[in-house]
Amino acid sequence: MEFNKRYELYLDYINEALEKVLVVMNTPEKTCYEAMRYSLMAGGKRIRPVLSLAVCDLFKKDFSEVISFACAIEMIHTYSLIHDDLPSMDNDDYRRGMLTNHKVYGEGLAILAGDALLNYAFEVMIEDILKSTHNMLMRVKAMGFIAKSSGVKGMIGGQVVDLQSEGKKVPLETLSYMHKCKTGAMIKAPVVSSAIICGADDSQISSLSTFAEKIGMAFQIKDDILDVEGDLSTLGKNSGSDVSNDKTTYTTAYGLDGAKKILEDVTNEAVGAIDCFGTEAEFLKDIALYIAKRIN
Amino acid sequence: MEFNKRYELYLDYINEALEKVLVVMNTPEKTCYEAMRYSLMAGGKRIRPVLSLAVCDLFKKDFSEVISFACAIEMIHTYSLIHDDLPSMDNDDYRRGMLTNHKVYGEGLAILAGDALLNYAFEVMIEDILKSTHNMLMRVKAMGFIAKSSGVKGMIGGQVVDLQSEGKKVPLETLSYMHKCKTGAMIKAPVVSSAIICGADDSQISSLSTFAEKIGMAFQIKDDILDVEGDLSTLGKNSGSDVSNDKTTYTTAYGLDGAKKILEDVTNEAVGAIDCFGTEAEFLKDIALYIAKRIN
Repeated sequence: MEFNKRYELYLDYINEALEKVLVVMNTPEKTCYEAMRYSLMAGGKRIRPVLSLAVCDLFKKDFSEVISFACAIEMIHTYSLIHDDLPSMDNDDYRRGMLTNHKVYGEGLAILAGDALLNYAFEVMIEDILKSTHNMLMRVKAMGFIAKSSGVKGMIGGQVVDLQSEGKKVPLETLSYMHKCKTGAMIKAPVVSSAIICGADDSQISSLSTFAEKIGMAFQIKDDILDVEGDLSTLGKNSGSDVSNDKTTYTTAYGLDGAKKILEDVTNEAVGAIDCFGTEAEFLKDIALYIAKRIN
Repeated sequence: MEFNKRYELYLDYINEALEKVLVVMNTPEKTCYEAMRYSLMAGGKRIRPVLSLAVCDLFKKDFSEVISFACAIEMIHTYSLIHDDLPSMDNDDYRRGMLTNHKVYGEGLAILAGDALLNYAFEVMIEDILKSTHNMLMRVKAMGFIAKSSGVKGMIGGQVVDLQSEGKKVPLETLSYMHKCKTGAMIKAPVVSSAIICGADDSQISSLSTFAEKIGMAFQIKDDILDVEGDLSTLGKNSGSDVSNDKTTYTTAYGLDGAKKILEDVTNEAVGAIDCFGTEAEFLKDIALYIAKRIN
């Protein structure tokens, strides 16, 4: 199947699942559900859950095996964006062409809606584990991998380093560590957790890990490039914000052309890492190229 | 054993476990660990993990069965305090006689340290489940109960209602719903999760649930009374802050004497709910009395 068509198919499956998994309850805390949904259903590429499903396909398993975990990962990603956009962090007014959560619901509620999404991600995974009649151990392991990836040793740690680097010239190794944690960990999480649930062996998990690490890097480098080249209409946020915040990025460190060269190398390494899966891995390889070429 | 002595024994066991479970790593995100520890190790009554251990004792099980879950619950409680104290929420400068997290580390880091504590709570529970050689299903169920208690249907939902009620006269049923979620859910969580792990039957869980609901109510009523009666030296925060924020509380709704009468009734109901356990439940009954009588 053609890449775009398959991506759409995954996307539809994911959006339908997200639609069902988070329903607004008519209880006193209703606004919290609305704020959670506002950001969760704001669209976006859904690259993380798409990776979950693609890996599931690679192992010829039914999507129902991994969909709860895929939704949970998207919730964790969404909460991190809500908190990242807050005035005390990046202070962004727009995200995906829409007002950010705190601009609509106020700062207090945006913090709580973010907290609730992180918490709900675990609720959803645990419920899935309890209702599955098989494979409990593997599911708990997959959830453990996701939890580590989103925590202080992963995504949150990266955000802390990012916050502390603002307005400073930071060493390149710090930049690379920060990206590995902040963006990389939650790109790796869907790939590895899905592989664990689908019964991948150690060598397969290792290949997929390398693939995920490389596309995680590519994703961040491309983000930095887009921040310089993009504009509000395609990017949905003000471009150049990293430069104006005086942040170290791949483009400020290596120049625009240097960053593009690294992006190309890293993308090739990602593709090479999953050669062992043969033609079955075609879609995952295309994702790597898609990340490098995307315009928003 | 005398109540105070036994409480101290539990407290020591808990503080030692917390000390070990969250170690500051010498990595670029070091400050995040420090901010997490600053609030987690700030002392306090540790009433939630004490309840976990007391229920564990009731079923004559080893503390090692439940200690990870007890620590996780204290982490969730702590993160909720950090976020609650933020300028966009309660805007408190002091907590337990110390500067609040955001006053020491700044708002951005305080938000992330809170996020990290919530996430770490799940990391710790999952790790415990994966290393335990028995009882996996019951542990996952217990974690699921905790997750629901801390989420949008529980504690966070209560915080949302609290935030939305500020400066408004809210109906009493909203007040009671808010407390049930905001405070009650995370008092019930250690009692019920510990009972599940220790193999309690449905009727025992039901009795302990009622007990926990009642002491949760008592806890909140006492908090409202202390907010009127307490002062900075014993309470560790500015008293009268609810009144100055124009919040509906048990004391503004029922008057100080009315609130004290409700507190007495609810405490008696808590004690009555666990009569079925006989003298073994003496300590839990004493906790109910302790909550009603505490001065901070």
